Amino acid sequence: MIKRILTTGLMTTVMGLMTMAPAHAAVDSEVAYILNSLLFLIGGFLVMWMAAGFCMLEAGLVRTKNVATMCVKNVGLYALAGILYFLVGYNLMYSGVDGGFMGSFSLWDAGETAASEAINTEGGYSSASDWFFQMVFVATAASIVSGTVAERIKMFPFFGFVIVLTGFIYPIQGAWTWGAGWLSVSGFSDFAGSTIVHSVGGWAALTGAIILGARKGKYGPNGQVRPIPGSSLTLATLGMFILWLGWFGFNGASQLALGSAIDAVAVSQIFVNTNMAAAGGVVTALCLTKLLYKKVDLTMILNGALAGLVSITAEPLTPTIGEAILIGAVGGAIVVFVVPLLDKLQIDDVVGAIPVHLVCGIWGTLAVVLTNDGASLMTQITGIAAIGAFVSITSTIVWYALKYTVGIRVSEEDEHKGGDLAELGMEAYPEFGIGSQKI
Amino acid sequence: MIKRILTTGLMTTVMGLMTMAPAHAAVDSEVAYILNSLLFLIGGFLVMWMAAGFCMLEAGLVRTKNVATMCVKNVGLYALAGILYFLVGYNLMYSGVDGGFMGSFSLWDAGETAASEAINTEGGYSSASDWFFQMVFVATAASIVSGTVAERIKMFPFFGFVIVLTGFIYPIQGAWTWGAGWLSVSGFSDFAGSTIVHSVGGWAALTGAIILGARKGKYGPNGQVRPIPGSSLTLATLGMFILWLGWFGFNGASQLALGSAIDAVAVSQIFVNTNMAAAGGVVTALCLTKLLYKKVDLTMILNGALAGLVSITAEPLTPTIGEAILIGAVGGAIVVFVVPLLDKLQIDDVVGAIPVHLVCGIWGTLAVVLTNDGASLMTQITGIAAIGAFVSITSTIVWYALKYTVGIRVSEEDEHKGGDLAELGMEAYPEFGIGSQKI
Amino acid sequence: MIKRILTTGLMTTVMGLMTMAPAHAAVDSEVAYILNSLLFLIGGFLVMWMAAGFCMLEAGLVRTKNVATMCVKNVGLYALAGILYFLVGYNLMYSGVDGGFMGSFSLWDAGETAASEAINTEGGYSSASDWFFQMVFVATAASIVSGTVAERIKMFPFFGFVIVLTGFIYPIQGAWTWGAGWLSVSGFSDFAGSTIVHSVGGWAALTGAIILGARKGKYGPNGQVRPIPGSSLTLATLGMFILWLGWFGFNGASQLALGSAIDAVAVSQIFVNTNMAAAGGVVTALCLTKLLYKKVDLTMILNGALAGLVSITAEPLTPTIGEAILIGAVGGAIVVFVVPLLDKLQIDDVVGAIPVHLVCGIWGTLAVVLTNDGASLMTQITGIAAIGAFVSITSTIVWYALKYTVGIRVSEEDEHKGGDLAELGMEAYPEFGIGSQKI
Repeated sequence: MIKRILTTGLMTTVMGLMTMAPAHAAVDSEVAYILNSLLFLIGGFLVMWMAAGFCMLEAGLVRTKNVATMCVKNVGLYALAGILYFLVGYNLMYSGVDGGFMGSFSLWDAGETAASEAINTEGGYSSASDWFFQMVFVATAASIVSGTVAERIKMFPFFGFVIVLTGFIYPIQGAWTWGAGWLSVSGFSDFAGSTIVHSVGGWAALTGAIILGARKGKYGPNGQVRPIPGSSLTLATLGMFILWLGWFGFNGASQLALGSAIDAVAVSQIFVNTNMAAAGGVVTALCLTKLLYKKVDLTMILNGALAGLVSITAEPLTPTIGEAILIGAVGGAIVVFVVPLLDKLQIDDVVGAIPVHLVCGIWGTLAVVLTNDGASLMTQITGIAAIGAFVSITSTIVWYALKYTVGIRVSEEDEHKGGDLAELGMEAYPEFGIGSQKI
Repeated sequence: MIKRILTTGLMTTVMGLMTMAPAHAAVDSEVAYILNSLLFLIGGFLVMWMAAGFCMLEAGLVRTKNVATMCVKNVGLYALAGILYFLVGYNLMYSGVDGGFMGSFSLWDAGETAASEAINTEGGYSSASDWFFQMVFVATAASIVSGTVAERIKMFPFFGFVIVLTGFIYPIQGAWTWGAGWLSVSGFSDFAGSTIVHSVGGWAALTGAIILGARKGKYGPNGQVRPIPGSSLTLATLGMFILWLGWFGFNGASQLALGSAIDAVAVSQIFVNTNMAAAGGVVTALCLTKLLYKKVDLTMILNGALAGLVSITAEPLTPTIGEAILIGAVGGAIVVFVVPLLDKLQIDDVVGAIPVHLVCGIWGTLAVVLTNDGASLMTQITGIAAIGAFVSITSTIVWYALKYTVGIRVSEEDEHKGGDLAELGMEAYPEFGIGSQKI
Repeated sequence: MIKRILTTGLMTTVMGLMTMAPAHAAVDSEVAYILNSLLFLIGGFLVMWMAAGFCMLEAGLVRTKNVATMCVKNVGLYALAGILYFLVGYNLMYSGVDGGFMGSFSLWDAGETAASEAINTEGGYSSASDWFFQMVFVATAASIVSGTVAERIKMFPFFGFVIVLTGFIYPIQGAWTWGAGWLSVSGFSDFAGSTIVHSVGGWAALTGAIILGARKGKYGPNGQVRPIPGSSLTLATLGMFILWLGWFGFNGASQLALGSAIDAVAVSQIFVNTNMAAAGGVVTALCLTKLLYKKVDLTMILNGALAGLVSITAEPLTPTIGEAILIGAVGGAIVVFVVPLLDKLQIDDVVGAIPVHLVCGIWGTLAVVLTNDGASLMTQITGIAAIGAFVSITSTIVWYALKYTVGIRVSEEDEHKGGDLAELGMEAYPEFGIGSQKI
C-alpha cells in the first residue's frame, strides 16, 4: 500500500543516505517493524489527545451559553471522523491512487491481523498502527472547522458537513500528495500537513464562516467590531498546551519510521524544531501585542503558539533551530495581523482558526522552499492553490446544500438563548447562572 | 511468576501462531525484554492518567459544593491503591495462586533490581514495569466507586472501603483469572478487564449506592426524579477525553508484550478497536438521546464513549472494526436506557458509573463469545456471576461494617452544606459564591 | 559531549554491573541508539506537559483577577526557556566544563542531523533528543518561580528574570554536576534534580518573594495571616495530576538510557518509586491536616503529592518501595509544617512552591545517603550549600537589578485591580463577573 513515505522529497533523500550509510548490520527487520509501529501508536495517541485540546480551546473561547454544545460537537466529530475514515476515507486516500486523483471506494481492512499465520515484517509497520495515525489526522482537520463556525451553526448539519469532510473532501485531496497522487508526482512537499491537514480545515472553516454569516451583534451597522470574549481563558490555555503536546506526535511520527538511527535523529530534530517554532510564535505574539496595543493579549499568545506549530508542520525536519524559530515567529506575526483583518472583512471566526490554520498553513507550505532544496516554490504554490480550490469549492457546495435543505443556522431566538439551552436543554455551568444571560 | 498472559484464550492462540511463524531469527531476547517493559511503562502512565480523568469527570458531575471533596477522594484513592497493592494486593493476586482462589499474603518485592548482577531476559519484562501496570488497574477499579457514592459519603469511611477493595477484594477475584486461579483454568476470558476491573468497581459502587441511599432531594415522595446537574460539563468532557486516551494504555498494553511483530500488530489492532468502540458509543448516545428526548444530552454522550470503551475491554483484539463499532454502540445504547432505569429503582448513581462500568462490563464480557472462538458463553456467565457474587457480598459486608461502626453517611446538615465546607472547610471556586448556596 | 551520565554515582555502579553481566550478545548499538533516543523523546514530552501542569496549578491557586496573567507567564516562560537554552544555556552547561565551573558561550548545534552521511551510533542517542530532554528541565525550574511571585510581579520584569535564570543561572550550576564540573568530581549525587532543578527554582522563588514583599492584605499589622484562597481547586488538582504524570518522564528518562535490560529494569523501578513517593506524600498530608486542623486540606494534599515527587527526585532508583514511600511521606510532612512557618516569616508564597521545591528538594538530596552507598552526607551538603549560595546570590542581584531599573512590583492600584485588567485588559472568566471585584 502506498504511504506518505513515498511522496516527500526529504524521505527520498534520507533513503538515499541510508544506502550510503557505512556498512553495518542494519536493524533487524522485525525490530524495525515493531519500532515503526510503536512510533505510529505513540504519535497516534498524542494526536488523538489533540481532539481534547481543540475541545478545550474552543469551549474556552465561546460564551458560556454555547460551551456544552461545543463539547458535543468536538466529541461527536472525533467519533464520526474515525467511522467515516474507516468506511470510505482511508481507501479513498491510499488505495490505488497511483498518480491520479483518488483511490477506491471500499472499507478499510487491515489485511494482516495478529491471528495471521505470519507477519511480513518487510512491510515496515503494522497496517493498523498506520491507519490509527492517519485517522487522527482527519479528525484534526474536522476539529479546526468547529471552532470557526461556533455559536450559530446547527448541530446536526454541522455533523453532516463533518461526514463529507472526513469521508470525502479530506481523503481525496490527501490522495493527491500522501496517497501518491498527481501532486506527489509533481514534487509537492508537505511533511506533516500544513496544507493537507491545516489549511484544508481552514478553507472549510472559511467557507462555512462566510456562508453562515457572523454572530448576531458581532459587527455593528457601521462596521464596528464588538469583541465577544470567551468564557474561560484557562480552558483555552489548557487546550493550547494539549495541542502543543500533541504536535510532537503530529510532526514527529510523520517521519513514519523509527527503525534506524537516522530515523531516530530525524524524529528528535522534528521534536526540537516543532517546539522552537511554537516558542517563536509565542514570543512574537507576546511582544507584538504589547507593542501594538500596549496590553498583552493571552488569546493572541495562544494562537501565536498554534501559529508557530502550523507553520513548521510542512517542514519540521530540514530547518535549523534558528530557522524554526523564525518560521514560527512569522506565523505568530501573521496571527496578530490577520485576526483584525478578518474582522474588517466581517468574517466571524470565533476562535481564530482561519489565521492559525489556513493562513499559517499556507505560509508554512511556502516556507518549505527556504530550507528544503528538494522543494520548488512553483510546485508549492500549485499544491496550495489546487488543494485550496478543491476544498473551497466542495465545501461551498456542501455548505449550500445543507443550507438549502435542512438549514445550517440556528434561529435568532436560539442564537440568543445559546446552543446549550436550545439544542441540549442543559447548561455547562448551571450553578453560575449569570453565564447564559449576561452577554 | 504467573501473569495474565497465561490465562487468556487468545494469548494461547497467539503463542501457538508464534511457533508456526516462518523461521527467521526471532527478536533478540534482551530487545524483546526492553520493548515489553516499555509497553508496560507507556501503558502504565496512560492508565495512571485515567486517575485524573475520573477525577475531572466526577468533579464536573457533582455540585460545586462537593467538588473539592471529590478531588480529595480521587487523589487519595489513587495513592492508597498503590500502597495497598504493594502491601497486600499484588502477591494476593499473583503469587502462587495455582488454580486456586488467592495468592499469598506478603509485600511485593521486585526480585530483580538494576543493581542485580544479571537480568534474566527470558523472564520477558521487568517485574517492576509489570507491577506498575497492574497497580494502575486496581486504582481504576477504585476510581469507579467514588463517582457513584459522591455527595453523601463520609471521606474517611470511603477511604476505608478503598483500602479493603484495593488490598483484598480486587486482588482476590483478580487472582481467579489473571492470577491463574480457578476461573482461568475454566477458560474465562476477559482480556483487559470488562469484568475484572470495571464490573468489580461497578458492583462495589452499586452496593454502596444502595446501602448509602440516595442524596436528599433526588427522589420525591411519589417517585419523581429530580435532575441534579453537575457543576462543570467542560471538566466532565475533559475527564472523558482523558479516559479515552488512557484506555489505549489500558487495553493496548494488556497485550502484555511488544517483543514481536505479532505483538505489534495486536497492540495496533487493539488501539483501533478501542477507539472505534468508543466512537460507536458516542454516535449511538448522540442519536438516541436526540430521538428519544428531542435534545442531545452531553452527559449521555460522555458516558456513551465510556460505555463503548468498557464494552470492548473484555476483547479488543479479535473483533473486526465493524464489530468493534457495534459492540461499542450497544454499550452506548445500554447507557441511554439504564440511566433512567436506575432512577426508577431510586438507586442514586451520581455520575452514571453503574450503567457504564457494571452493565457494559457485563455486556462486554458476554460479547467476547461473538468474536473469540476460544470463549464459551457458559464460562463467561460463570465468571461474571462468580465475580459479581463475590464482590457484591464482600462489598456489602464492608459497607455495613463501616456503617455500623464509624458511619458512612454525612449528617443531613453537612450534606446540605456540601462536603467542601463540612469536611474541608474550603470552597472549590470561592469567588463564585453562588455555587455552595444555590442548590 | 559530557552528559549527566558520567556524574551520578549510581550510573557508575550500573556500568560496572554491565561489564559483569553474563556474556551474551549485547543489544545492537543501533537499536540501543534508537531506544535511548526514544526514552528522551517520551520523557521529554512528558516533562514538557509539566509546563501545562504548573500553569493549571498556579492558575487555580491565584485569584480570578490574576488568572489570565498567570497563563501568559507560564506560556511565555516555557517559550523563553527553550530559546535561551538554545542560545546560551545548553553549551554553558555541557560544553567543555571539564571539572570546572561552566562551559562555553555558544549556540547549541546538534552536530549530527538526519541529513548526515552517517550516524555514529556509538554516541548512544540522538543529540537532539538529549537537548529536548534537557531543555524541558530548565523550563521546569522557571515554572517553579512563577507561582511563588504571582499576583504582584510585573510581567515583563518577570520574563527578564526568566531569561537570566534559564540562560545563565540554571546552566552554570547545572554544569557543576550534570555538566561534569567540580561538584561531579567531588561525588555530589542528584539523579534527576531535587537540588539542581527543584531547589534552584525554589531559591530563585524565595529571593523573589522576599524582595517583592507580600501581597497587599496578606499579613495584617499584628502579624495576622489572611488566607487568600485560589480561584479554582479543580484546575489546581488537574495541574497536580499533570505534574505527577510528567514526573515519570522527569525521573524515568533521567536514567538516560533504555538500550539494555538493566536500563529497562532501572527505568521501571524509577517509575514505581516515583509513584510511591508521591503516594506517601498524599497520605501524610491527608492524615496530618486531618489530625492538626480537624479538616482535610486539598491544597496541602496536592502539595503533599508534589513534595513526595520532589523528595524522591534526587534518588529514585536505589530506594526500596517502602523507603520510597517514607521519603515521600517526610516530604508531605515538610509541606504541612513549612507552609505555616513561611507565613510566620511573612514570606508570601502564593502556591507553596518554596516548601515543595526548595525544602523538599534539600530533603531529597540529603536522603540520597540513606539508600545510595555511593553518596556521602558531607558532599551532599556541600552541593546543596554551593548551589543554594550561588542561586540565591545571583537571583538576588538580578531581582534587585530589575527592581532598581524597570521595577518589579505592580502599582498598588494595579495589584488591587488584578493583573488581568491591568496588564492584559481582559478577564479569565468574563461572564462570572464577581471574580475580579470580590476579593
